[in-house]
Amino acid sequence: MKSLIIGSIAIDNIYTPDAEYKNLIGGSAVYAGISAAKFGEVGVSGVIGAQMSEEIMEFLRANNVLCDYIEVKEGKTFSWSGRYLDDMNLRETISLDLGVFADFSPKLPEKSAEYVLLANISPELQGYVMGKMQGAFFMLDTMDHWITEHRQDLVSMLKGIDLFLLNDSEAQLLSGKRNVIKAGREILAMGPSAVIVKKGEHGALLFVESDIFIAPAYPTENAVDPTGAGDSFAGALLGRISAMGFDKDRLIADMAYASAAASICVEGFGPYVLADASADDICGRVRGFKKALGCNLLD
Amino acid sequence: MKSLIIGSIAIDNIYTPDAEYKNLIGGSAVYAGISAAKFGEVGVSGVIGAQMSEEIMEFLRANNVLCDYIEVKEGKTFSWSGRYLDDMNLRETISLDLGVFADFSPKLPEKSAEYVLLANISPELQGYVMGKMQGAFFMLDTMDHWITEHRQDLVSMLKGIDLFLLNDSEAQLLSGKRNVIKAGREILAMGPSAVIVKKGEHGALLFVESDIFIAPAYPTENAVDPTGAGDSFAGALLGRISAMGFDKDRLIADMAYASAAASICVEGFGPYVLADASADDICGRVRGFKKALGCNLLD
Repeated sequence: MKSLIIGSIAIDNIYTPDAEYKNLIGGSAVYAGISAAKFGEVGVSGVIGAQMSEEIMEFLRANNVLCDYIEVKEGKTFSWSGRYLDDMNLRETISLDLGVFADFSPKLPEKSAEYVLLANISPELQGYVMGKMQGAFFMLDTMDHWITEHRQDLVSMLKGIDLFLLNDSEAQLLSGKRNVIKAGREILAMGPSAVIVKKGEHGALLFVESDIFIAPAYPTENAVDPTGAGDSFAGALLGRISAMGFDKDRLIADMAYASAAASICVEGFGPYVLADASADDICGRVRGFKKALGCNLLD
Repeated sequence: MKSLIIGSIAIDNIYTPDAEYKNLIGGSAVYAGISAAKFGEVGVSGVIGAQMSEEIMEFLRANNVLCDYIEVKEGKTFSWSGRYLDDMNLRETISLDLGVFADFSPKLPEKSAEYVLLANISPELQGYVMGKMQGAFFMLDTMDHWITEHRQDLVSMLKGIDLFLLNDSEAQLLSGKRNVIKAGREILAMGPSAVIVKKGEHGALLFVESDIFIAPAYPTENAVDPTGAGDSFAGALLGRISAMGFDKDRLIADMAYASAAASICVEGFGPYVLADASADDICGRVRGFKKALGCNLLD
């Protein structure tokens, strides 16, 4: 298997100022998986309970995600209910039931994947996968909970990470720096080869060696549900890197594909709009960036 | 006179989480003036009271700003005290004393300037200047107060505006749209030839005809005081447009100069760091954008 994503598979209930949707397929591995699959072979390692298990497996297979390492277990599927505030960058969790995900122990292929995305799971599990997949290219995502409660586990892992993604508030939390540029540089110094600080609708910054790169968000006026945007971003990046090989000098261009995928993701509730988008739809948005940034005009 | 800025001249007291500075030269016309003067001939129309008047005039002259249309009057100079919160994008006014600025009636040249920046003053005064300077290229800035309290005056002026600048929260307020892309399009439909929505450390968006352009902020880790960033941005844009002529297809490149000037401005308290920067310093940052955006790599 070329690339593998380890993360959550969930059922989401989402409330925004304008709408509410229940029983959406969700989870970091789902969003990242369908996004990565547009660029090449990708599998997911995860766990599902009885609830909606067939629907979820069918959805993933229909979107070219290999499901050999997904286990279906007795018990409840991980479920998350969240509400987005008027400022869609802010959200609050209404309820969270880990179900079978509480005891998640990733099933892994005998032979290591070449490219591995450690999506948002505990640093302990992430470290376990790294031990089993030595020699792979590792992308790492995390969340505020792990930074606050499992800081040492997380930090001790960073030296082995090729590309670390986290959002701006998480970067501030991890580094203790308010300024995101300072925060990004500080986190890069903790060991990863490259760091991406995601800023939601404001795009992302890439820190590699002494350079800073700017990946703007694709401007969409149809943003209705930010859920999964960061995971779609990470998944598309994994897909591009596994298809093209990792090149730190080309990473900023790969991020344009990631931004494009994320912008499509937020245009519908759940992962369905992104699922329906083709690689061509994503490439079309990438072409739009060059004009939108005035690249031909900058000397 | 090639270009003219009509706006405030002030004395600022600024408090941030890390520092406080008193009796700084400030005001929209000051920041915009010294920024525009790096690119060509520019004058300011404004009013100063007795306090610090000589220091302010000397500062402007030393920075190549023509002061023929600045009046020094008996009374207090406009004074503003403000505090930036932990999130430097948020600020609160501690005190504000308009002084002689309360009765500001702009002194204007007999012959109209070619390019006019109507900085943040009342829509009534902005309309007065437009009447006196017919045929000029008009840039317009505003603030939440005028949108809330003088909405009709502001809106009725927009059809005569070539380039309207406002920040994201003001755009949301004026348009009633939470999504800034929707907000920008809505405001463009109100009449201006082009609209720039400024997003502080997240850059700016340009709306012109059916196109959207993205001007990222220059990434600086030394941001200590956001005061005047928007005015420096507008001033540099005025300077570039007056030096090169207005071309809507090149506006996104001109905005790179504006972002560069703003990024230098925020690296010190008051306008002094920007004052010390040369046009070459600004051009250096503009060259940095092309690499930082990966322009050579986007197809």
